[in-house]
Amino acid sequence: MLRLDELVARLGGDLLGDPAVIVRRVATLDQAGEGDLAFLANRKYASRLGDCQASAVIVAPDARELTTLPRIVTADPYVYFARVAQLFSPPDNPPAGLHQTAVVDVSVPASVSIGPGSTIEAGARIGENVVIGPGCHVGRDVVIGDGSRLHAAVTIYHGCVIGRDCVLHAGAVIGADGFGFARERDGSWVKIPQTGRVVIGDDVEVGANTTIDRGALDDTVIGNGVKLDNQIQIAHNVRIGDKTAVAGCVGIAGSTTIGARCMIGGQAGIIGHLVIADDVVVSAGTLVTKSIRRAGVYTGNLPVQSHLDWVKNFAHLRHLDDMAARIRALEQRLDKIDPA
Amino acid sequence: MLRLDELVARLGGDLLGDPAVIVRRVATLDQAGEGDLAFLANRKYASRLGDCQASAVIVAPDARELTTLPRIVTADPYVYFARVAQLFSPPDNPPAGLHQTAVVDVSVPASVSIGPGSTIEAGARIGENVVIGPGCHVGRDVVIGDGSRLHAAVTIYHGCVIGRDCVLHAGAVIGADGFGFARERDGSWVKIPQTGRVVIGDDVEVGANTTIDRGALDDTVIGNGVKLDNQIQIAHNVRIGDKTAVAGCVGIAGSTTIGARCMIGGQAGIIGHLVIADDVVVSAGTLVTKSIRRAGVYTGNLPVQSHLDWVKNFAHLRHLDDMAARIRALEQRLDKIDPA
Amino acid sequence: MLRLDELVARLGGDLLGDPAVIVRRVATLDQAGEGDLAFLANRKYASRLGDCQASAVIVAPDARELTTLPRIVTADPYVYFARVAQLFSPPDNPPAGLHQTAVVDVSVPASVSIGPGSTIEAGARIGENVVIGPGCHVGRDVVIGDGSRLHAAVTIYHGCVIGRDCVLHAGAVIGADGFGFARERDGSWVKIPQTGRVVIGDDVEVGANTTIDRGALDDTVIGNGVKLDNQIQIAHNVRIGDKTAVAGCVGIAGSTTIGARCMIGGQAGIIGHLVIADDVVVSAGTLVTKSIRRAGVYTGNLPVQSHLDWVKNFAHLRHLDDMAARIRALEQRLDKIDPA
Repeated sequence: MLRLDELVARLGGDLLGDPAVIVRRVATLDQAGEGDLAFLANRKYASRLGDCQASAVIVAPDARELTTLPRIVTADPYVYFARVAQLFSPPDNPPAGLHQTAVVDVSVPASVSIGPGSTIEAGARIGENVVIGPGCHVGRDVVIGDGSRLHAAVTIYHGCVIGRDCVLHAGAVIGADGFGFARERDGSWVKIPQTGRVVIGDDVEVGANTTIDRGALDDTVIGNGVKLDNQIQIAHNVRIGDKTAVAGCVGIAGSTTIGARCMIGGQAGIIGHLVIADDVVVSAGTLVTKSIRRAGVYTGNLPVQSHLDWVKNFAHLRHLDDMAARIRALEQRLDKIDPA
Repeated sequence: MLRLDELVARLGGDLLGDPAVIVRRVATLDQAGEGDLAFLANRKYASRLGDCQASAVIVAPDARELTTLPRIVTADPYVYFARVAQLFSPPDNPPAGLHQTAVVDVSVPASVSIGPGSTIEAGARIGENVVIGPGCHVGRDVVIGDGSRLHAAVTIYHGCVIGRDCVLHAGAVIGADGFGFARERDGSWVKIPQTGRVVIGDDVEVGANTTIDRGALDDTVIGNGVKLDNQIQIAHNVRIGDKTAVAGCVGIAGSTTIGARCMIGGQAGIIGHLVIADDVVVSAGTLVTKSIRRAGVYTGNLPVQSHLDWVKNFAHLRHLDDMAARIRALEQRLDKIDPA
Repeated sequence: MLRLDELVARLGGDLLGDPAVIVRRVATLDQAGEGDLAFLANRKYASRLGDCQASAVIVAPDARELTTLPRIVTADPYVYFARVAQLFSPPDNPPAGLHQTAVVDVSVPASVSIGPGSTIEAGARIGENVVIGPGCHVGRDVVIGDGSRLHAAVTIYHGCVIGRDCVLHAGAVIGADGFGFARERDGSWVKIPQTGRVVIGDDVEVGANTTIDRGALDDTVIGNGVKLDNQIQIAHNVRIGDKTAVAGCVGIAGSTTIGARCMIGGQAGIIGHLVIADDVVVSAGTLVTKSIRRAGVYTGNLPVQSHLDWVKNFAHLRHLDDMAARIRALEQRLDKIDPA
């Protein structure tokens, strides 16, 4: 718990109202009560300020007079809320030290925590304050930067590089072989050794069961500040620019380059060998089949309908070319009868 | 192996024919032979009864006279078949006891089995007859109800709750952080601590490599009797009603609420903050982008075509608005020439 | 490093130019330098031969005179490149032997390597030169053929069969229960025990976090030479023919049979109980909802558009039936005015 003036001293913002008010946690406007700090991130919910039971609120400058509650005025209340929440709920790291069942073939800083049953192979370099959960595997010559955390059952194949302050969730697999085979005339596949690495920048989060394949010859590269949700598949030699966020279940095929600050919606797919510009937003469920050269929002998903409407409407999808031809024919017939 | 009268004594149904017939396993009508118990679940396959080599069959009341084989008459032959199969193939649980390589920081009932290399952290409460396979991680303060089974390599993050008689398959991850970040003006993401839990009801099955994220402030909730296939992603603060079944590869985005007894087809996606009513069926591959307020079947997927037909027809998808405008123009021209 | 004449002695092909040239690695035409062996797999890149800095190149017979560099002439340069790359980058297997923390309940050949914390249950049969990485679980009565490799954290449920020379990447789960339940009238699900196995042929690669479910009564079968990328879900009783390749994030529903030498694009889905012929290619993101009886390319995905164009065009998808009716009406009106 913190006094409002202590919060502002740490995180900035202008304080209006009693500086001695104490807050213990963050909450939404609707659910906040005594001891809670709520926030108004979107002006359209301003009416909820009226009934708000919070001890204090975070508001933007244009909302500073909309309430008489003790309040912190800041340019971006949602970001401020996130920072307050971080203060109230810091990461709950296990104590430093190597569990006696861990198999660690390198020396690591005293600040490092390695959980039961984890294996760290020869040549790995583990930074200060790194936390490696139970059942992880860190392959030969892997580098993990200061302050990064692996939750349970994370696998990092040999030679891959993880930056500082990264979080890898359970079941993530970094550096498995890319899907590279040459096809013989009889259809047999000849494996192409995947000799590149995965190189992940600083402050990256990788979701549970997400997979990032190592490069074929060059590396697969994930920029600084990238956020990856769960169950994402990133193929060999993909490059993702700084601060791009990718939602769950997305698949990105080989050698595609994605710019900085993009946002890729859930279950979207991006085929191989494309280039996606900076600041592109791809809607959920959209398959990107060509490069996107300009910032903007791009979509290619389908509306859901009642099944009966879908049957009625979508039967025509197989006959769009015929429909188009009939429209042209009608126009030509009408032009003859009724020349413009 | 069981005599038919023993089966009926245990599972109900009316027995016609020799009660002393012995059956050893279940089989389909086509493949059944001596010692097999087959079933007719769908009247349209009734003709197969004629050649059936089974020692006995399970039939519905309206099919009781379609065969002279020894038979069990029951309202739902497929459910009856499932129950017989359960009798013949009970779960093959390992013996109770803690493997010497397990790291268990709590006391557990004597009926519990914990496999090699699994870790159970402080504060966890493990019910009677729970089976935890090899290489699992059960975090601090997790609760696992009586009779639940974790197969290999399951991870449950701190504080999550698993009900009774649940089955979690290998690689499932319960309670990883939800994908919650606030965006700063320069595009950087500030992590919002995910302080809710995952709360799973009784009799729930979770497929291999399925992920269910913990809530941001409130919990993510999975109802009783829910069945989740493999590779499903369930985001933070999702709520799924009792007995809903979700097929493989589905993604459900944050804060969406799904009703009871729904059936969600494979690779479907449901975006965030929606409400789906009870008894809704979503077809495979459908992206649900708005709330569904009434029971029924909903679809939004695409017909597959030969690639040439697809090229021909789908080129028009980028020009539907133009096609619609040309139809309107034709109608107006024709109205002038030929007023109704 | 190898001399060109040594390479040709091992892998075949015709050598033109200095046989004593030494190559150390493979590279693309663009990036190759001193000591590199480049390849021209596609005649359309022939112009790049001019500037190529490689020490030697691999070319097809029709390109043999397009360069004066030392060159190996072979029918399929890309396959040749793959074989050379294999020579330069052989699999980096750990030494034979059982790690002291492995829990191995069977006797295994002296050539086998089993990593830290892995468990091999009773009845399992492990072939010569098998490598099992750290944290794997091999269930009761599993069979693994000679030369196969499991990377970290692979789970194989009881009774499943893996052929020779297979590679299973981290987090793969073989043989979890299929998604089989009978539905009671109140919507409850009764589990149908899954008593079949997964049977995988020789020379199969299974990607990271891919899941293959065991059969319900019969087996799930993966043919020889099949290549599966990451995050694929293969349901119970699926059968996949020899040499078929499946890209990442594909889902294949229960009891579907896929032919030999098929190529299934990323994020494609195939619903259950279908039959797909040999030599079928399914494009990325396509949902296959009916059987495909003839070889060929099949597609059913959507073009991506700017969001504004999508809004404009796709609103009409809900009204295609109306559009079709209006076209018919126009034709009928015009036929009356202007009979053909």
